[in-house]
Amino acid sequence: MTILIEESDASPDVKAIYDDIKATRKVDGINNFWKAMARHPATLKRMWDNIKQVMAPGAIDPLTKEMIYIAVSITNNCRYCIASHSAAARAKGMTDAQYAELLAVIGLANETNRLVHGYDVPVDPRFLTD
Amino acid sequence: MTILIEESDASPDVKAIYDDIKATRKVDGINNFWKAMARHPATLKRMWDNIKQVMAPGAIDPLTKEMIYIAVSITNNCRYCIASHSAAARAKGMTDAQYAELLAVIGLANETNRLVHGYDVPVDPRFLTD
Amino acid sequence: MTILIEESDASPDVKAIYDDIKATRKVDGINNFWKAMARHPATLKRMWDNIKQVMAPGAIDPLTKEMIYIAVSITNNCRYCIASHSAAARAKGMTDAQYAELLAVIGLANETNRLVHGYDVPVDPRFLTD
Amino acid sequence: MTILIEESDASPDVKAIYDDIKATRKVDGINNFWKAMARHPATLKRMWDNIKQVMAPGAIDPLTKEMIYIAVSITNNCRYCIASHSAAARAKGMTDAQYAELLAVIGLANETNRLVHGYDVPVDPRFLTD
Amino acid sequence: MTILIEESDASPDVKAIYDDIKATRKVDGINNFWKAMARHPATLKRMWDNIKQVMAPGAIDPLTKEMIYIAVSITNNCRYCIASHSAAARAKGMTDAQYAELLAVIGLANETNRLVHGYDVPVDPRFLTD
Amino acid sequence: MTILIEESDASPDVKAIYDDIKATRKVDGINNFWKAMARHPATLKRMWDNIKQVMAPGAIDPLTKEMIYIAVSITNNCRYCIASHSAAARAKGMTDAQYAELLAVIGLANETNRLVHGYDVPVDPRFLTD
Repeated sequence: MTILIEESDASPDVKAIYDDIKATRKVDGINNFWKAMARHPATLKRMWDNIKQVMAPGAIDPLTKEMIYIAVSITNNCRYCIASHSAAARAKGMTDAQYAELLAVIGLANETNRLVHGYDVPVDPRFLTD
Repeated sequence: MTILIEESDASPDVKAIYDDIKATRKVDGINNFWKAMARHPATLKRMWDNIKQVMAPGAIDPLTKEMIYIAVSITNNCRYCIASHSAAARAKGMTDAQYAELLAVIGLANETNRLVHGYDVPVDPRFLTD
Repeated sequence: MTILIEESDASPDVKAIYDDIKATRKVDGINNFWKAMARHPATLKRMWDNIKQVMAPGAIDPLTKEMIYIAVSITNNCRYCIASHSAAARAKGMTDAQYAELLAVIGLANETNRLVHGYDVPVDPRFLTD
Repeated sequence: MTILIEESDASPDVKAIYDDIKATRKVDGINNFWKAMARHPATLKRMWDNIKQVMAPGAIDPLTKEMIYIAVSITNNCRYCIASHSAAARAKGMTDAQYAELLAVIGLANETNRLVHGYDVPVDPRFLTD
Repeated sequence: MTILIEESDASPDVKAIYDDIKATRKVDGINNFWKAMARHPATLKRMWDNIKQVMAPGAIDPLTKEMIYIAVSITNNCRYCIASHSAAARAKGMTDAQYAELLAVIGLANETNRLVHGYDVPVDPRFLTD
Repeated sequence: MTILIEESDASPDVKAIYDDIKATRKVDGINNFWKAMARHPATLKRMWDNIKQVMAPGAIDPLTKEMIYIAVSITNNCRYCIASHSAAARAKGMTDAQYAELLAVIGLANETNRLVHGYDVPVDPRFLTD
C-alpha cells in the first residue's frame, strides 16, 4: 500500500521540493513522510508550503511547536507522527524530563476531557467574556 | 444532569480542597469543573492531586503546559476544557498571536496524522534508535 | 437540520416500530433518537433490530451494557448518547456511586491509552497467546 | 523509542512500586506498561496510585471495570491496552460470550454516536431533569 | 488474541454466511474480517446483514460508499479497514488520482474541524433552517 | 471567546480574500468560519488557499468531496462543520435519500472499525500488495 519516492527517482518538481526541505531544515536526508506524499506532487507541495509556514519560528518557539504536534499525534495515536516529531523535538533540545512532563500533561488532559463530558460541566460565564 | 457543589454547600472535606485550590492558584473563585467533581469527593481529591502535581512548574513552563492542554482539548472537542485552559493560558500571558499559531499547529497536526494513516507511511528506522 | 417524526405523524411502517419499541421497553414515549431515525425508515428499522438484539440480556447484564455504552459515548463526546444512556442506566438501578466510579475508570483509561502511545509500549508476548 | 526498566535494573524507589504492584495484584511479573512508566518515577508512582484506587473493588465490581477499560481502549484503538485489559478481564472470569457481547455493544455505540451527530438529535428534556 | 475461522473449519451456520458473502460479492475467498467475526456467529450474521444492506447500490454509488468508509477509517486510524476498503475501492475503479484527492479532503477536514473547535465558531443561522 | 470579523470591519487584506471567496463560490455572504479565521489573516489566507485547491472539481466531483467532508466531521463530532458542509452538499444536489445513506455508511464504518480493533484482525496479505 505504501509507495515511497526516493530522491533518485524523483521528478524535477518533486526533487525541487526535496531540495528545499533539505536546505530549510539543514538535513541531508528526506523522511518517509515526504517520500509518501510525493506520489501526488500537488499534495507534496501543498503540505510542504503549509508546514514550512506553520512550523517556522514565530510567536511560539519551534520546540514548543513540536511538543504541541506531539500532543495531537499522541491523542490521535499516530505512531509515525509521534516518532518523527519526537525526533525533531529532541534535535531541538527536548530533554527526557520534558518528554515525561509532556506525556503527563497529555494523559491528564485526555482524562479530564472525559470527566467534563461525563458530568456535563457548563462553561463558567467568565471564560466566554474574553 | 449537572450538579454543582457551591462553596457554601461544601462538606468540610470538599471545602478543604476548594481552599487549597484557591490558595495554590491565588484565585478567589472555584471553577465549575471542581464544583462538578465535588459530587464525588474521592474523585475531587484525586484529580486535584494529579493536576497540582502535573501542572506545576517543572522542566516545562506553565504557559506551555496550558498550550499542550489546549491542543488535546481541541483535538477531542471538549468545549469546556478549551474555554477554561484558554482563560488560564491568557492569564499566564498567552497573546492573540500565540493562540493563532497554537491553533495552526493543532490543525496541521490533525491533518498530517491522517495523511500518514492514509498512505500507511512506515516509520524511518532512525526515529526508533533514540 | 433536525427533523423529528412524532408518533401522530408516523407512517404505518414507522408506527409499527415505535409500538415495538414501547412494548419491548415497557415505556409509553419515544425518544428523540428514534424520531430522528424515522426520517429514513430503513435506518430506523435496521438500528432498532440491532439495538434490540445487542442490548438484550445475555452473557452481560443490561445495566453493565448501559455502562459500556456510556464509556464509548463519553470517550466520543456524544452529549445526547451520554444523557440517554445515563437515564437508561439509572432506570436499571445505577447509583451515584456507580456513576462516579464509571467516570473514574473512563477518565483513567483515556489517560493511560495516551501514555501507552507516547512511550510506544510493546505488547507483552503473553497477552497474545490466549 | 521504547525503554523498559527491568526489575533487576530498577532503582529502590521503582523497585518498591514494582513490589507493591506484585503484592496487590498477586502476580509475579511486571507488565511492560509499568516498565515503560518507570523511565519517569514520578509518573510511575502517580499512575500506580491512581490505578490502584480507581480499579479497586467498589460500587462496580473489578470485572466490569475491566470491560469499561476495554470499551475506552477499543474506541481509542490502543492495541496494548486492549491486550492487557482483555488478559486482566479473562483472569477475572470473562468468557468468550461476554467478550463477544462487549464488542457488540462497543461497536453499536460507536455507530449510534455518529447517527446522533449526523441527525443533530436534540436531548430529550426529561434526560436533563435527573 | 486473534482467532480466525477458516472455511474448512466453519460450522454450517457460518459456512452459509461465507457462501452468501462470496456469492454476493462474486469473490472466491473470505477476508480476515469475516473469519474473525465468525468466532461469534450472531455477530457475523448481524454484521453481514448490516453491511449487505448499507453498502448495496442505492442513492449513493458503491465506489463513493467505499470512499466514505475510507474517510471514517482514516480518521479513526483503523489500518485493517483502510487496507480492505482501499482494495475494495480500487476493485470498483478508484484511480491513484482519486485516492490522492480523497486523502487531501480527509486531511483538510480533520484540520478545519479543529480550527472550528479552537475558535468556537457559532453555526450560521441559515445552516439550521433547511 | 468567538470574535467574528464582519465584512464592513475587514482590513483590505481580509476584504480581498472575502471577495475571492464570494466570487469563487458565487455567493453573496461570508460564513462564520471565515469571519473567525480572519482574526489571524495569515491563517485565513492559508486555509482559503488550501480549501480552494482541495475542494475544486478534479478526479472526484464536488458533491462527493462534500460527503467525504461530512464523514470526517461526523466522526469527529464537529457540529459547525456538519451543518456547513451539509448545507454545501444540499446546494450541490444532495437528496434526503443520499444523506440517509451517507449517515448509514458513516455509522457502520465507525462500528466495524471498533470490531476490528477488538478482534485485532490481521491485514490480509493481498491488501498490501497493490
